[in-house]
Amino acid sequence: MTQERPELRKRPANFVPLSPVSFIARAADFFGERAAVIHGNRRFTYKEFYARTRRLAHALTKAGIKRGDTVAILAPNVPAMLEAHYAAPMIGAILNPINIRLDAALIAFCLEHGEAKLLLADREFHATIMPALEKMGARRPIVVDIADMETEGAPSFGGVEYESFIASGDPEFAYPGCEDEWDSICLLYTSGTTGNPKGAVYSHRGAYLGAIANALTFKVDHDSRYLWTLPMFHCSGWTYTWAVTAAAGTHVCLRRVEPQRIFAAIAEHRVTHMCGAPIVLNMLVHAPTEAKRPLPLRTKVATGGAAPPAIIIERMEAMGFEVLHLYGTTESYGPSTYCAPLPEWQELPVSERYQRMARQGVPNPMIERLAVIDPETGVLVPRDGASIGEIALSGHILMKGYLKNEAATDAVFADGLYHSGDLAVWHADGSIEVKDRSKDIIISGGENISSLEVEETLYRHPLVMEAAFVARPDDKWGETPCAFVTLKADASEVSAEDIIGFCRENMARYKVPKTVVFGPLPKTSTGKIQKFVLRDQAKALK
Amino acid sequence: MTQERPELRKRPANFVPLSPVSFIARAADFFGERAAVIHGNRRFTYKEFYARTRRLAHALTKAGIKRGDTVAILAPNVPAMLEAHYAAPMIGAILNPINIRLDAALIAFCLEHGEAKLLLADREFHATIMPALEKMGARRPIVVDIADMETEGAPSFGGVEYESFIASGDPEFAYPGCEDEWDSICLLYTSGTTGNPKGAVYSHRGAYLGAIANALTFKVDHDSRYLWTLPMFHCSGWTYTWAVTAAAGTHVCLRRVEPQRIFAAIAEHRVTHMCGAPIVLNMLVHAPTEAKRPLPLRTKVATGGAAPPAIIIERMEAMGFEVLHLYGTTESYGPSTYCAPLPEWQELPVSERYQRMARQGVPNPMIERLAVIDPETGVLVPRDGASIGEIALSGHILMKGYLKNEAATDAVFADGLYHSGDLAVWHADGSIEVKDRSKDIIISGGENISSLEVEETLYRHPLVMEAAFVARPDDKWGETPCAFVTLKADASEVSAEDIIGFCRENMARYKVPKTVVFGPLPKTSTGKIQKFVLRDQAKALK
Repeated sequence: MTQERPELRKRPANFVPLSPVSFIARAADFFGERAAVIHGNRRFTYKEFYARTRRLAHALTKAGIKRGDTVAILAPNVPAMLEAHYAAPMIGAILNPINIRLDAALIAFCLEHGEAKLLLADREFHATIMPALEKMGARRPIVVDIADMETEGAPSFGGVEYESFIASGDPEFAYPGCEDEWDSICLLYTSGTTGNPKGAVYSHRGAYLGAIANALTFKVDHDSRYLWTLPMFHCSGWTYTWAVTAAAGTHVCLRRVEPQRIFAAIAEHRVTHMCGAPIVLNMLVHAPTEAKRPLPLRTKVATGGAAPPAIIIERMEAMGFEVLHLYGTTESYGPSTYCAPLPEWQELPVSERYQRMARQGVPNPMIERLAVIDPETGVLVPRDGASIGEIALSGHILMKGYLKNEAATDAVFADGLYHSGDLAVWHADGSIEVKDRSKDIIISGGENISSLEVEETLYRHPLVMEAAFVARPDDKWGETPCAFVTLKADASEVSAEDIIGFCRENMARYKVPKTVVFGPLPKTSTGKIQKFVLRDQAKALK
Repeated sequence: MTQERPELRKRPANFVPLSPVSFIARAADFFGERAAVIHGNRRFTYKEFYARTRRLAHALTKAGIKRGDTVAILAPNVPAMLEAHYAAPMIGAILNPINIRLDAALIAFCLEHGEAKLLLADREFHATIMPALEKMGARRPIVVDIADMETEGAPSFGGVEYESFIASGDPEFAYPGCEDEWDSICLLYTSGTTGNPKGAVYSHRGAYLGAIANALTFKVDHDSRYLWTLPMFHCSGWTYTWAVTAAAGTHVCLRRVEPQRIFAAIAEHRVTHMCGAPIVLNMLVHAPTEAKRPLPLRTKVATGGAAPPAIIIERMEAMGFEVLHLYGTTESYGPSTYCAPLPEWQELPVSERYQRMARQGVPNPMIERLAVIDPETGVLVPRDGASIGEIALSGHILMKGYLKNEAATDAVFADGLYHSGDLAVWHADGSIEVKDRSKDIIISGGENISSLEVEETLYRHPLVMEAAFVARPDDKWGETPCAFVTLKADASEVSAEDIIGFCRENMARYKVPKTVVFGPLPKTSTGKIQKFVLRDQAKALK
């Protein structure tokens, strides 16, 4: 036989484009009475959730949104965010979830660059959205107000309110759906620390496969209750906006990521799964006693977006959480690797076990290639756990490209691999361990110092709550290590000398910070510590 | 923005054909030292398993096998079967696993119809393979002998032996891989009860997605140990040939499906997962006491291929197994639906719970549409748990078509759906429950009788081991119900009147068998009861 034969062609019965819209149709059809979305005292079954998304898809169509148009949304983790992740793709539109912490200028940039035809805008963010719209003048998109139960009293943008908007749509709208699985589904601007954000574009196929990979590695199932502690505007919630629906589990919404609300939601809804940056885990670890509540079950927490210090994993597990460590970038639809916990790790000493869990691990099945390469030559670095190289990826869950930026797309996809800009070592078992962003590495007296490694040690100090480690320009050494430290509330007595002394006891001499600065740490809108701000501060130190 | 933009095009970094060959490359690269295959006292790590498949791919290439060629294999569940499932696809060849229970004429038919260029032949089946080859004369394929450790003394086919064959290949062979994900990967002949078998053709894409769906629904993971009780020639082992590797779990091979060997393997390897037709489960339930061994853990068993009576599920669970019920056909890559156990079922009375588990359930995520339709009009039947219709499917895991049989392909894929030929009712919750193959339904005095329903009752009789229920032609009633029953070893005292009496107490009068015949039941090569043989016997009864 040969590969091409007429009787073996694609037909409607055996070939369907991969699109996450299928997940919600299936869940409504076969898990229709089960809880899909919980938000405060509102609850939607999968039938209701599907009907709401079809209404939204129809209302968008009636508002003039066509295939290929962009629909933006700026909202926290409320039902409208989830609904938009299905409604826009249903009509071939591209959803652009905008970071709620952006200022007016950046919001305007996203809306203009992405050519948003319509914006779903949460009233809580009136103070930044309104000036952005004013700045845009005649190019401003149609605005639909999201007046959520907790936004009472917040001013309107003057448009129709979300609930009225969707009420105007047909709950049985026969949406056209995805035509080609490579069609764009989402546009996500990276939080770029310098210059304008870049718009990573996802496909229906990638969203589908990313969601399946994440359901698989995080073991999300139809009896899972997933708490939305991770912003949905962050890589479409690492694809869990779709993965939880693929599994027909329950989405538990959460407007504000605060320890008290998180512990209360876990207790009330018996939350089985949640995600968050290490900063969120640290917040839970250091939550005031009155905010904490005992866990009703062993809640799984996936963390990533920045490398979690082993001690945070250890403390989370001590509180009863089960931590899964993921690694990825906006360009890889969020998680691309996971630190698969191996049964044999159970026999390791506790601290070593958590060191293992702090590694970024191995690729999930949707990654075709994971390599650690010399950024100059592209040659693989040895798997010796010591040689540092850049993490490079290819596979089913890499973005289509950066919107309207072919040069940046070409650069990041050079030589058939996505170049992450993250530096890592490669262990003998194939797992990777991130050492730094390329720009975060410190070179002091010709020696490379991994900021993460020093931070790992600082986090072990019993009175340190958060720490970041950057280079301070130095005439003699080129750079010297400088630590920024936030102490725990009850730890005002700690001095710079104490910290330096602790480091001397726990690391090689050349890595020990020469300078220690106390105070709160500046963070990006996704909770990452803004090292570029700290570097500026370190430079300005006298 | 619009859907087509040059910077958003497919590139090597972000677009790769979906192919299960990727699973083994990933497992070797990132789980390389973990156990991939266990067969008796042989053990291969993933690195070794991958090297062996690359050797085989290279040896096939050197033997003249090219892209689009068919490679057949006739062997039980030994390592060569697994290796062939990767090696053939690595070079774009199509693997045709042949049912080991076929007679010489049917083997020759498969080899000729599939145009096999090379046959990997297990010596145990010399008695049927050799005459098939002789029958083919000059058209006979190249034969490679599989001389497994348990085939000692069996005559050779005169070709090179498998281990020597792969030893001639390069363990680092840079195989060309899949070019287009729609390319054919496997050819599987259905066991067709009448006429020539039809050759269902699978694609790389379907195999990949089927494997992922099955890893997801059966929760196969990197610490899973999967026992090969299901023939790999049956839908490529319901795609678990690939799914277990996707999860980087361990394949435990098994030459013969016998209770003693199964219980021993479970105990020795701490088997976590296995699959089998209900007939295999029944065999385990009725195994002699000396063959049974206590389970070291709660082994998951997926069953399907025929509807399992609820009582078999109940008895398997009583033995400590956890049963998952799957439904599918060769045309759907094996499992297409699964009976997702819902948490609320725990509160149901035991017998009702097992009745639920005996349903065929809901579609897995790779099925786009599952419908129960009137076979004449295509109209959906109501979800009332009573109206009978035909199960129809579409989605990512339906075969490409029947090789060289466009008419049959057109017929089975009419109106955009795959028509399964299985009759079912649709419950209010969306789950389906198979009532019969279309040809197995009995129509007595104008009333439809589901043979499965009557068999369910017969299986509840304490002394019945197996039962089948068919129509017996009758001048007055059209057809009358006739039961064939195999009694347990210690149950020679039971009479036809006892069985009929038991039925009278447990079912509507018109369903009660008029005739009861005792004796062993004829089975197909995949363990299904051959109702057409029983129908012939019933017709011949005086």
